[in-house]
Amino acid sequence: MNDIAGATRQLSDALGSDCVHTSEAARFAVSFDNSRFSFMPDAVVLPRNEADIRTTLLLANAHRVPVTVRGAGSGSAGAAAPLRGGWVIHLAHWKNIEILSSASMAVVQPGAITADVDAAAAAHGLFYPPDPSSVKHCSICGNIATNAGGLRAAKYGVCRDYVLGLEGFLPTGEFVRWGGALRKFASGYNIKDLWIGSEGTLGIITKAILKLIPRPQARHTFLLAFESDENALDAAADLLARHIVPSVLEFLDSQTVACVKKDNVFAAFPPSTGYTATPATAILLVELDGHPAAVADEATRTREWAASRATIFRETDDAAEAERLWDIRRTCSQAMFQLGNAKLNEDIVVPLHAYVPLIRFTREIMRRTGLATPTFGHAADGNFHIHIMYNRDDPEQCRRAEAGILLMMKNVVDLGGAITGEHGIGITKSPFLRLQHSPAELAAMQAVKNALDPRNILAPGQIFEVTNIWEHRPVNVTLPWDKH
Amino acid sequence: MNDIAGATRQLSDALGSDCVHTSEAARFAVSFDNSRFSFMPDAVVLPRNEADIRTTLLLANAHRVPVTVRGAGSGSAGAAAPLRGGWVIHLAHWKNIEILSSASMAVVQPGAITADVDAAAAAHGLFYPPDPSSVKHCSICGNIATNAGGLRAAKYGVCRDYVLGLEGFLPTGEFVRWGGALRKFASGYNIKDLWIGSEGTLGIITKAILKLIPRPQARHTFLLAFESDENALDAAADLLARHIVPSVLEFLDSQTVACVKKDNVFAAFPPSTGYTATPATAILLVELDGHPAAVADEATRTREWAASRATIFRETDDAAEAERLWDIRRTCSQAMFQLGNAKLNEDIVVPLHAYVPLIRFTREIMRRTGLATPTFGHAADGNFHIHIMYNRDDPEQCRRAEAGILLMMKNVVDLGGAITGEHGIGITKSPFLRLQHSPAELAAMQAVKNALDPRNILAPGQIFEVTNIWEHRPVNVTLPWDKH
Repeated sequence: MNDIAGATRQLSDALGSDCVHTSEAARFAVSFDNSRFSFMPDAVVLPRNEADIRTTLLLANAHRVPVTVRGAGSGSAGAAAPLRGGWVIHLAHWKNIEILSSASMAVVQPGAITADVDAAAAAHGLFYPPDPSSVKHCSICGNIATNAGGLRAAKYGVCRDYVLGLEGFLPTGEFVRWGGALRKFASGYNIKDLWIGSEGTLGIITKAILKLIPRPQARHTFLLAFESDENALDAAADLLARHIVPSVLEFLDSQTVACVKKDNVFAAFPPSTGYTATPATAILLVELDGHPAAVADEATRTREWAASRATIFRETDDAAEAERLWDIRRTCSQAMFQLGNAKLNEDIVVPLHAYVPLIRFTREIMRRTGLATPTFGHAADGNFHIHIMYNRDDPEQCRRAEAGILLMMKNVVDLGGAITGEHGIGITKSPFLRLQHSPAELAAMQAVKNALDPRNILAPGQIFEVTNIWEHRPVNVTLPWDKH
Repeated sequence: MNDIAGATRQLSDALGSDCVHTSEAARFAVSFDNSRFSFMPDAVVLPRNEADIRTTLLLANAHRVPVTVRGAGSGSAGAAAPLRGGWVIHLAHWKNIEILSSASMAVVQPGAITADVDAAAAAHGLFYPPDPSSVKHCSICGNIATNAGGLRAAKYGVCRDYVLGLEGFLPTGEFVRWGGALRKFASGYNIKDLWIGSEGTLGIITKAILKLIPRPQARHTFLLAFESDENALDAAADLLARHIVPSVLEFLDSQTVACVKKDNVFAAFPPSTGYTATPATAILLVELDGHPAAVADEATRTREWAASRATIFRETDDAAEAERLWDIRRTCSQAMFQLGNAKLNEDIVVPLHAYVPLIRFTREIMRRTGLATPTFGHAADGNFHIHIMYNRDDPEQCRRAEAGILLMMKNVVDLGGAITGEHGIGITKSPFLRLQHSPAELAAMQAVKNALDPRNILAPGQIFEVTNIWEHRPVNVTLPWDKH
């Protein structure tokens, strides 16, 4: 075995005890992410500068100590959990944001909070669109590490679409730059986009240069109710087939809507709309944005579509009223816990033609497992959050949930889909990786990992090794982004 | 030495003589690209199907035969030239285009012509924006191999921004899929974007799935004349700083404008505009597109900007009249040949703040070398085509051109720029690669190449090995995209 304790003492001597923390509390705090699977590291490194990162990596390579990079720790796949122990490089305090207004770019440090990047852009009339639901808590380079998406992806793309340049360290400790403050770059291999979405296994980002766009001036929101999941999803596909590109198109299935407190649905569809007389079961939320005249034209076309498709619908271009329509979407994630004290939360993607087969399969899984399978998500890009609700204290329910999620993932791949659209593989989806990728594809990926990280220092065990999460019990903690 | 002749006989036996061509004419035709540096292959393979590609790659690996993939051969960096001989897999006849209208996607074979992809999209009201100047001749997967850009990149992005999925073969002959007909995909490493821009050295693409967007409904064009290059470039930066995002913002420097036939400039700025009285030397072409009301608003803001910045300007929202304004841009590439019978054509990129230093440096190079350095290009993304014009029959001029281009590339990197924005490295830019990337960066790229192509089969010698193009004389051929 490696002498990690000895290596940690060397690291502490090299960087000082201000930088290297080994208390149980410090180590526990960085031992898990939003997946809540905890793996204790041997030390936490809070680098002051790039030299500290380089020193840490060189020592890690010399002593074969696993290194895990961490931002805000809000990832959902366990990629920030130090699965094999070792050292966690914690970059949450690297938060600088500089806006290059003329060039419409942002230069950010890895720990900058995504919402803060967008707020800084907004001060110049600019916009950083990717908005994962943890946007007020997640770090920008955590977003880059997972290629985070969010609600606006079908119109505005995902994190990757906004990353012009990255700086940082190879696993072996060498400083590198990929791309720059440039809108075109065609020199050499595109390691920048290989880093994006590699979940901290191929490099450590110390700076990112992001593309910004003009902020949309107007917004128009529709809330629509449908008699069935199928009606809602057929309608969503029809909207997209009309080549209307909403900034947001959220779907809430009948199981999700049933969980949302009646008050919320009443607030959105008060009795005057005829809601109580029409038992609407599935919901779509549509947001259009852009130039006011363009939004007005799209709203006209969307209204025609809504009138021909929905049981009832409401619309507004008033921001405060739109917020009330949004309340339904916001409460659904927590409301589901009335169906079980634990949930499997998968962020699968299916092609447009497979929306209805997918939702039917979630109900098939419900029938087979006896567990609820509420589903909501981003119907403009096919990225649905499917859940299996269960009682984690009931081993039989755990077994059924495990079997159900495996069936679900197989079905998603059979439908031409992806097992993850924005969370990444990390540890929680590692059991399904071989459903998605052929042996040749995985061998190519692992050859790339070996090429860039020959001593397997960065986040060993993540993505490619199967971690059976059912053997691990999540820690019981309340995290900043938990909704109340 | 390898027995390439024996391997070629085996290949011909395996695929049949309909697929494997060895005549001198067939081999010469695929021996060069738009750079015109010719390297003769041993055979040309016209695969009927994917099995033929697989057979070719397996034999190539067994016998260590170099393999070069080729689409339309319109690349400018020599990446399609079979530098080390061997076999050329020619995919120009794989031309299928299928539009998934509801999903706003295109499924294309590698040899589909880029303009045909956009025309097929247009039939459904959709748009494939990337438009390299060879758009009517270049193949879509050649665009993907070089991450081609074009005029509209600052608003619409480059080729990479539209590639959702790729299928094809690893250099070792295994079939793989990266991504799919999906707008989000976060599973495993992003080899898709590593393939994009890798100039045929990491894989062979047999199918691509492209994202399409709604076609812009309106267009408005401005042509502006300025007293100096500096005035034009300062004005371009000012337009961008106002967060107006033109679909096109083309710059023609004073040397370029001087080459354009007087007739063209008169047609664009007839005497009634006061052109002959105001010797305008540099030109900007601005195109706005999108929703008619949004374009009208942007045109108002652009008009204010033009009035405060340009010596004279003209504008139109009439398509035929816009075409006449565009004639100036179209003729400039050929018009330059009055300054020399050969040109070095570089597609560098610099940050917004470096536009003026760059153009001053082109004139500095002109002074130092005594050779003309006309420059035009995409001022919205900093991607300028700088040229050095020389007489290729004059060894002294060749020497000065060579020295001048090296100084230019050093300056570009010093300005924080890129040595190529859309052409790629291939062979013609290989002498400059080490100006752009550190040894650690290059080692990482080459480690990736070795990992995916352990026998160095695909396009050996491209990108990473320095080819001294001054030792090679270009072939004298007229190509389909040569303008007359």
